[in-house]
Amino acid sequence: MSRGRVTIPTDVDVVKETIELAERWGADAIRDCDGTDYPKELKNIDAKVYSTYYTTRKDNEWAKENPDEIQQMYIMTNFYNADANELSIHLMDHLYPDMLKVNERDDMKRWWEVIDRTTGEIVCTDDWEYCKESGNVTIHNTTLFHDYTVSFLAYIMWDPVHMYNAVTNGWKDVEHQITFDVRQPKTHEFSMKRLRKFLEENPHVNVVRYTTFFHQFTLIFDELAREKYVDWYGYSASVSPYILEQFEKEVGYKFRPEYIIDQGYMNNTYRIPSKEFKDFQAFQRREVAKLAKEMVDITHEYGREAMMFLGDHWIGTEPFMEEFQEIGLDAVVGSVGNGSTLRLISDIPGVKYTEGRFLPYFFPDTFHETGNPVKEAKENWVTARRAILRKPIDRIGYGGYLKLALQFPEFIDYVESVCDEFRLLYENMKDTTPYCVKKVAVLNCWGKMRAWGNHMVHHALYYKQNYSYAGIIEALSGAPFDVQFISFDDIKEKEHILDDIDVIVNVGDANTAYSGGENWIDEQIVTAIKRFIYEGGGFIGVGEPTAYQWEGRFFQLANVLGVEKENGFNLNKDKYNWDEHEHFIIEDCKGEINFGEGKKNIYALDGTTVVKQINKEVQLAVHEFGKGRCVYISGLPYSFENSRIFYRAVIWASNDEDNLHKWFSTNYNIEVHAYVKNGKYCVVNNTYEPQESTIYRGDGSSFQVEMKANEIIWYEI
Amino acid sequence: MSRGRVTIPTDVDVVKETIELAERWGADAIRDCDGTDYPKELKNIDAKVYSTYYTTRKDNEWAKENPDEIQQMYIMTNFYNADANELSIHLMDHLYPDMLKVNERDDMKRWWEVIDRTTGEIVCTDDWEYCKESGNVTIHNTTLFHDYTVSFLAYIMWDPVHMYNAVTNGWKDVEHQITFDVRQPKTHEFSMKRLRKFLEENPHVNVVRYTTFFHQFTLIFDELAREKYVDWYGYSASVSPYILEQFEKEVGYKFRPEYIIDQGYMNNTYRIPSKEFKDFQAFQRREVAKLAKEMVDITHEYGREAMMFLGDHWIGTEPFMEEFQEIGLDAVVGSVGNGSTLRLISDIPGVKYTEGRFLPYFFPDTFHETGNPVKEAKENWVTARRAILRKPIDRIGYGGYLKLALQFPEFIDYVESVCDEFRLLYENMKDTTPYCVKKVAVLNCWGKMRAWGNHMVHHALYYKQNYSYAGIIEALSGAPFDVQFISFDDIKEKEHILDDIDVIVNVGDANTAYSGGENWIDEQIVTAIKRFIYEGGGFIGVGEPTAYQWEGRFFQLANVLGVEKENGFNLNKDKYNWDEHEHFIIEDCKGEINFGEGKKNIYALDGTTVVKQINKEVQLAVHEFGKGRCVYISGLPYSFENSRIFYRAVIWASNDEDNLHKWFSTNYNIEVHAYVKNGKYCVVNNTYEPQESTIYRGDGSSFQVEMKANEIIWYEI
Repeated sequence: MSRGRVTIPTDVDVVKETIELAERWGADAIRDCDGTDYPKELKNIDAKVYSTYYTTRKDNEWAKENPDEIQQMYIMTNFYNADANELSIHLMDHLYPDMLKVNERDDMKRWWEVIDRTTGEIVCTDDWEYCKESGNVTIHNTTLFHDYTVSFLAYIMWDPVHMYNAVTNGWKDVEHQITFDVRQPKTHEFSMKRLRKFLEENPHVNVVRYTTFFHQFTLIFDELAREKYVDWYGYSASVSPYILEQFEKEVGYKFRPEYIIDQGYMNNTYRIPSKEFKDFQAFQRREVAKLAKEMVDITHEYGREAMMFLGDHWIGTEPFMEEFQEIGLDAVVGSVGNGSTLRLISDIPGVKYTEGRFLPYFFPDTFHETGNPVKEAKENWVTARRAILRKPIDRIGYGGYLKLALQFPEFIDYVESVCDEFRLLYENMKDTTPYCVKKVAVLNCWGKMRAWGNHMVHHALYYKQNYSYAGIIEALSGAPFDVQFISFDDIKEKEHILDDIDVIVNVGDANTAYSGGENWIDEQIVTAIKRFIYEGGGFIGVGEPTAYQWEGRFFQLANVLGVEKENGFNLNKDKYNWDEHEHFIIEDCKGEINFGEGKKNIYALDGTTVVKQINKEVQLAVHEFGKGRCVYISGLPYSFENSRIFYRAVIWASNDEDNLHKWFSTNYNIEVHAYVKNGKYCVVNNTYEPQESTIYRGDGSSFQVEMKANEIIWYEI
Repeated sequence: MSRGRVTIPTDVDVVKETIELAERWGADAIRDCDGTDYPKELKNIDAKVYSTYYTTRKDNEWAKENPDEIQQMYIMTNFYNADANELSIHLMDHLYPDMLKVNERDDMKRWWEVIDRTTGEIVCTDDWEYCKESGNVTIHNTTLFHDYTVSFLAYIMWDPVHMYNAVTNGWKDVEHQITFDVRQPKTHEFSMKRLRKFLEENPHVNVVRYTTFFHQFTLIFDELAREKYVDWYGYSASVSPYILEQFEKEVGYKFRPEYIIDQGYMNNTYRIPSKEFKDFQAFQRREVAKLAKEMVDITHEYGREAMMFLGDHWIGTEPFMEEFQEIGLDAVVGSVGNGSTLRLISDIPGVKYTEGRFLPYFFPDTFHETGNPVKEAKENWVTARRAILRKPIDRIGYGGYLKLALQFPEFIDYVESVCDEFRLLYENMKDTTPYCVKKVAVLNCWGKMRAWGNHMVHHALYYKQNYSYAGIIEALSGAPFDVQFISFDDIKEKEHILDDIDVIVNVGDANTAYSGGENWIDEQIVTAIKRFIYEGGGFIGVGEPTAYQWEGRFFQLANVLGVEKENGFNLNKDKYNWDEHEHFIIEDCKGEINFGEGKKNIYALDGTTVVKQINKEVQLAVHEFGKGRCVYISGLPYSFENSRIFYRAVIWASNDEDNLHKWFSTNYNIEVHAYVKNGKYCVVNNTYEPQESTIYRGDGSSFQVEMKANEIIWYEI
């Protein structure tokens, strides 16, 4: 119990310290990182050796010799106004010049698209041409005062992750690592040989940590080397004429750049996905999996383990989709920013183990004189622990420059305690499913493909526009529920999936993939959801649930949810239902509830119970429909109190208030998790202060507890 | 100058006082009101006598004898969920039982509509029937979990205005006045005779104050006699099978109840009007004008004047449309709630004079022991005066119970000063157009038909959702601009109307008739507006101007305005333009600007000058396009400071900062208006406190002024 399940980084300058730290933290695996080297002295250490492996970069010689197989991405220019009947657009405007190079090699008239964005029409290829000297596309016969864009292909001349690392760490005079595309014929053959060579030359490496298979999420920098566009789920850098021709053959229709460009929105996860984009993703999943399997098979052939880093060039692997399991990976490792990102890793099915890379990364941005790495580590651990207690990763680990961390002895001490705590809880939870109070399904356009990634733009980063929604997913990541992510397509294909669900959750802004947009006027979906609720199901809508302007309503389930949005069209109707009522859902709240960004202009229909309104804008309301119950919440950023509001909302919506006091803490800063099969349960203080509470066991009996900051206490059932 | 242009109310119990007050206020007209009687002692007074005349009520005997010609209205029930394959809907649910009576007389299958609101399909008339005993419509073969509505016709058994007056004033045991429909054959004939009889029996009446021609704006009360729905522009109470058959003949297509019902939104002014609704309004305008003319002609035949009350049953008259002038009215009188409603009256073309009924009405709600009628009167006068100084009404007046007002001598004194002030300013402005600094056009779906009524739900009432927009119209009502109201149709029909406009203003929420919705993807409109700006025009967008989700943008003029709304689809784009800049537009502001409800999630594009942002949400920004200039404002409730912001925005957008100091006050609480033809200008203190300022004349010369509260000072040019 004092060793194992922990990975630490190393470097050539910390050989002795690595051995000492491995001992203290009980690490049984050592890794290198981007920017470090594995010391030869540690090749025979009694621990697994991980080695990062970059399938698409760190071989500029090959890239330069095969410029036609450098990776490509689709880019759309800004909108340009035609103020004459000819318009010239410089393609590289506002792009970092060293990162991208216009693809002048392939047939532009076939793979590029000039679009009149005023009408949405494609400009005839006879009406424009590209000039290599100027780098401009010139459009002829433009219509005055129409706006035009050019969608074009560019080679990725500087790997965006390498560029990000170089810019962030201030690396000087570093040679820009050029990307190459493993899916193209010459590089495919080369890459398999390169991998074999690596395995042969590095017999000490036990685990090949792939970084990754093969396409970077969309990441573009502007002319000032600032991040310009980032989409952790973006597919626009996974293209090339070579694979697009294969795509065309497979789907049987002609490819258009617009399928990727999507009016410039690039099919980010807020967009309701088109059929063509879903086709493209499915094609990528299959093709990436096929090729990744080749590499994994080779790895196994050499007796090594294959681990995938969930990050960087991971586009197309889609760990929650069927194709992923065909790859045959042994493990997945990923960065843990919070509970949601923990479960993004730990919930992945079909691998032997998962590993979380915890924060802070041992980089100078945290490990400097005035930095406080212990605080960051604590926050990261305590936040992630909530989720680990629901579905554990199998290992934890750290990355970066070990030398930096060693200068902070308190940090070393704290992480030592984390490692011990992790091993203990892992042991106690082993091979069991924690007790689930309810089965909750998050319904949106993505379903399981974006499980735990809902409202994520770039991993766990904060965005003002989505933290109130992401709070729900974060609350769920550590809640004692069986959480499913289902899509509207799932309901259309098999309505029975709703049968064993207790509560459906629909969270998001109107007309996004998260609330669902036009799906809410699909007769089959609407009647399935209404039937589900009417027959006793629960429904929790957050933000603008079920929103789509149609037949007299903005919230299509307005008379089910009991609330509607005032969009001007109902101003003439007098609204009298504003009185607030006490309610089960908010019984544990102290003071004002934080609805985050909330929503404006929501009002309650007659018969709805308003729980909270602010200046005649409803924030929380409940309504019954048939035997079912609905809860509307305007927004709910993550906090322990809000997590409790959501928990109670689920219990109330499930019509199960009587069973609230089972595996329950009256103090919402403390949570209880039961592992019935193992005869264990734990009580965990999620805060950085001491707490006390009444704890209810599964049989409803209770006891008082006083807990130290962050403490976790294990009990026998 | 000490007499004239003033109307006062009277009653049988205040004969002597009426004469005294007429003397003090210089009143030259005396009127009765709803709830008062004209005293016979005053029939020969040396003043014009006005008499209210109700074309559609106050003759229950007739109404009861002709129940088939009682006025009707279209009503839509709530949405009802089908939880079995039969669904019964009680039509009168949530309606005040004494006010409406289901029309069981006309062919229901022809004039009613049952709609499946889940699919939008009309339910076959064979699948439903109405039961007179239960008052229910029963729908058969319903689809489980679809929502249904019934659109039906009901007779108006209690005139809504009479009901409102009775409920508001607590009138007990009053007989409910039933409406009758002058446009139907028997009542038409009867009404003309009734009018002649009235004129013959009331030779002392000089002015017939029609209240009005012939249809009440939509006003419905719920089961508790509370206002349920109110639309000062609503057409749903102007219907009957009789006129709908005529409508069908005229337009050549079949009428559907849905043309009026509009999914339950009842075509309120926030809805983008459909072709059919516009056809119906045009039909009503012609028909109402034709019949109103008959009454006016009779009035003239008897040597009397015909005055129309702009209010109550005025639907279809539409004073700003061509048909109105054919009626031949002598005058229009209306209630003045603020500057916008003042100009709603004073701007009406084609009548000999206009009159404003000022507040407070002499009713017990203000004239009671703790009431402060002087305060209300002052606010009303000072607010209206701003607009009067731009376009005066010809007369002012008061209404209600004179006896109540007489108990407040300070009120009598104050109004005496108002009457004198009004006569003086009227004299000074006579027959001239005040100097207009710029020509400003408000662009929306309604154009001149809703001139000065933009964002109005029920006359001058406050609504949280629109005060930030109505503030622009209020600012304009007293601003030294030539203000036009133009529609998208106007631009399509005659683009040259933009030629002499300095600044276009587009104000409203997305997808409403005020911002314009789908008009912004009409190629002709977009290019016309862009050309206008590019060639040097100004454009001010407030709220969600030019909004319609299409081809990569929510604000269709995003790259013209320089701002866009974050609706989730652009979250992936990094946004760096947040630094605020000093600007000409806000140079007179003190402290925080009040953007009212503002708008969330607006961000600036590159190249845009952000003037104000709050928590990374842009509130005020400017951007140039070609030779033109655009201003974005998130919202601007009415205040003197905000009025100044808007003024400066117009000047800046017109590229004319150099001429700011002409007919200008440095203190925004004071305004300057010039009447060049008459050789006069005035300086007016709009506040209730003393003010001082530097005043600039038209030639740029200036002087200092110190002003008393509310003072107006006249100067010779």
